[in-house]
Amino acid sequence: IPVERADALVRAFRARVGLVDGADGFVDLQVWQSDRDAGELIMVSRWRDRAAFTAYMRSADHRTSHDRIPPELQDAIKLERLEHLHTYEVVAE
Amino acid sequence: IPVERADALVRAFRARVGLVDGADGFVDLQVWQSDRDAGELIMVSRWRDRAAFTAYMRSADHRTSHDRIPPELQDAIKLERLEHLHTYEVVAE
Repeated sequence: IPVERADALVRAFRARVGLVDGADGFVDLQVWQSDRDAGELIMVSRWRDRAAFTAYMRSADHRTSHDRIPPELQDAIKLERLEHLHTYEVVAE
Repeated sequence: IPVERADALVRAFRARVGLVDGADGFVDLQVWQSDRDAGELIMVSRWRDRAAFTAYMRSADHRTSHDRIPPELQDAIKLERLEHLHTYEVVAE
């Protein structure tokens, strides 16, 4: 995201409604900001298994959460195609 | 890493000596494998704060852990310059 928008995105996230916290299989959720580039923000959520993640992504709660993103941020996100979703298995700890 | 080496790297990691687990400020450590590309492996460690991470990276325990990486994996890692270190602040949860 452009660096001048990073603070607004972080603030919006901190004010999140928190619906995901109660989802079945939810572990935790963090936003990471690169110390080299303040405009590089990664949202990381961890789940018990893939099925729990998929179920949440299809849920009404997920839609509700996304509908609360301020319109000007939503536009910036769409404009720059920032919603790159990458999924990983935890293979070792 | 070339996909044919991914299993060996994961196995080596699972056999890690675990010195980091006792480091001051250590939170957790996971290896993530992309579900689109089995050769994409990310090692993620989380720390109480930057100072704790830096102190561990300079420690004898960190050197000991790295010295246990099998030589053929070490060569592959070096050859492909895979040791890209990215650091992030957790700015929201």
